Amino acid sequence: MADISSKKINSFLSKIEEELLQINYGKYPKELYDPIDYTMSMGGKRIRPLFVLLANDLFGGKIKDAISAAVAIEIFHNFTLVHDDIMDNAPLRRNKPTVFKKWNRDIALLSGDVMLVWAYRFLSGCEQNKFLKILEVFNDAAIKVCEGQQLDMNYEQTDHVTIPGYIEMISLKTAALIAASMKIGAVLGGSTEKDAELLFQFGKNIGIAFQLQDDLLDVFGDTKKFGKQTGGDIAANKKTFLLLKAFQRAGNEERKKLLQLFSSQKKNPSQKVSAVKEIYETLHIQQETEKAISHYFTLAEKQFALIRADRYKKQNLLSFVSRLMKRDN
Amino acid sequence: MADISSKKINSFLSKIEEELLQINYGKYPKELYDPIDYTMSMGGKRIRPLFVLLANDLFGGKIKDAISAAVAIEIFHNFTLVHDDIMDNAPLRRNKPTVFKKWNRDIALLSGDVMLVWAYRFLSGCEQNKFLKILEVFNDAAIKVCEGQQLDMNYEQTDHVTIPGYIEMISLKTAALIAASMKIGAVLGGSTEKDAELLFQFGKNIGIAFQLQDDLLDVFGDTKKFGKQTGGDIAANKKTFLLLKAFQRAGNEERKKLLQLFSSQKKNPSQKVSAVKEIYETLHIQQETEKAISHYFTLAEKQFALIRADRYKKQNLLSFVSRLMKRDN
Repeated sequence: MADISSKKINSFLSKIEEELLQINYGKYPKELYDPIDYTMSMGGKRIRPLFVLLANDLFGGKIKDAISAAVAIEIFHNFTLVHDDIMDNAPLRRNKPTVFKKWNRDIALLSGDVMLVWAYRFLSGCEQNKFLKILEVFNDAAIKVCEGQQLDMNYEQTDHVTIPGYIEMISLKTAALIAASMKIGAVLGGSTEKDAELLFQFGKNIGIAFQLQDDLLDVFGDTKKFGKQTGGDIAANKKTFLLLKAFQRAGNEERKKLLQLFSSQKKNPSQKVSAVKEIYETLHIQQETEKAISHYFTLAEKQFALIRADRYKKQNLLSFVSRLMKRDN
Repeated sequence: MADISSKKINSFLSKIEEELLQINYGKYPKELYDPIDYTMSMGGKRIRPLFVLLANDLFGGKIKDAISAAVAIEIFHNFTLVHDDIMDNAPLRRNKPTVFKKWNRDIALLSGDVMLVWAYRFLSGCEQNKFLKILEVFNDAAIKVCEGQQLDMNYEQTDHVTIPGYIEMISLKTAALIAASMKIGAVLGGSTEKDAELLFQFGKNIGIAFQLQDDLLDVFGDTKKFGKQTGGDIAANKKTFLLLKAFQRAGNEERKKLLQLFSSQKKNPSQKVSAVKEIYETLHIQQETEKAISHYFTLAEKQFALIRADRYKKQNLLSFVSRLMKRDN
């Protein structure tokens, strides 16, 4: 059964890549379009468009019913990466120079804008009588992603970030688009309003769990499989779930140490990472994070159980999402 | 008759302001939404949404049929201003600090993104069976505006800008949205495909004429009425129609002088402006620019004449546009 599921997923992924490859965003002026081709051919896991197709399939939709919206979601996601990289001053993305580093800030800004317009172009390629509904879901998610990015930037400037505040931020920045991908797929596949909403909530909780998993892997992931040095978030002083949890659980001694480690700028990064990791281990932060992931995954499962769709397809989708959750890269 | 036309225009403008004022873009996070409220309440001539309403009215549409699209166009236009100001490093807009100066670049980038999403939200508020048509017109224009901005930035970096190249740039950056405003209004008002296209071409040529008029006013406008010091484009070394025309008409002597004036950085700006103005006068650049404006206005009139609509309304719209053309501010 796992094989059949993998076969479907691979065929959906191929279709997504094939569609993405065919798009001619434009040619002139070159400075505007080269960065779009560059970004869209960088790869990535294509999880969001895959969720659109899987949700659509769950309710009996055909690929042709949802591929255009799937592409729209992937273009939108990449638009957010291009703009986020400007704001985060990030030199690398998927081991390649970011658009703003390879070209410049203005070009990243403007070609990102064009990508957003293209996302709407593709979104409108769906069945006409479903367009207004999915446009509303898409717009809501788009706004939330921007709100999440702004909160993320705000949190960099303050020491008063709570765990609920952090969960709110990742719900907006990360989970909202995954939730929307699921719901848009469901609507296109012909689900009921109620099932579409359940899948939306499923996607939201899965999205939160994914982000917590990312936070965890950044510290405790297998460096070889994870494909990048662990501890990046610690080195960059990012207020992740792990750090917030550590402050919550820390006694006076550990709190002092943590504050010291995160306030000193000149600290040797690998020494700092090791020292923080040690505190995390003392405080059982890995287990605490896994508990939180499990909490959101269980919430997701409960909502998923209520959805009325083909039992076999449901099982396949859930086991695929489980495999994604258990990834160590 | 002019009075009746003005009355209608004033009532349309009031309606536009009233609608814009009512919008609640969002409240939290503040850093994201305050700049949107700030930008949208800065004023401006609201010409684009006015054109949507006038074109709609020309074919018998009611305000309620087009007000949502009119608002969408105005939000989109303001989105481009917020992002352009980042790229142009512009400190002031309408005599107030630009968003990126008042807040910062990241906030201007992100709140601009949210404005673009809001533009789509309002666009979708029109009659359902016309939405796909106007969305296509809107998306085409949005892409062109970005292409025009990129060309404008490219032109800053090269000495090889031709007059046709300049006209292409302003067709994209400025005229495309005016053309789209007219066409969207026409479609919403129930025009034929052919009339909508004629109004699009009318808007495009009017848009080019407006920009040439702006270029002209920047050098030869009445400072008091124009509301800002003349010569800003000259001081900033902008390759406007006037400068390109001057190079085209210059003999060896004037060419040498112009090159010298535009290459020296430390030149006293008002001395530079006077010296360039003098050369423009010798070369009859004002008359040449007026000739070009008149060329595009005549093209526009010819297309407008072919439109089949109420004669009286047509006359009012054309005389309003003429008055805009003759403005000296």
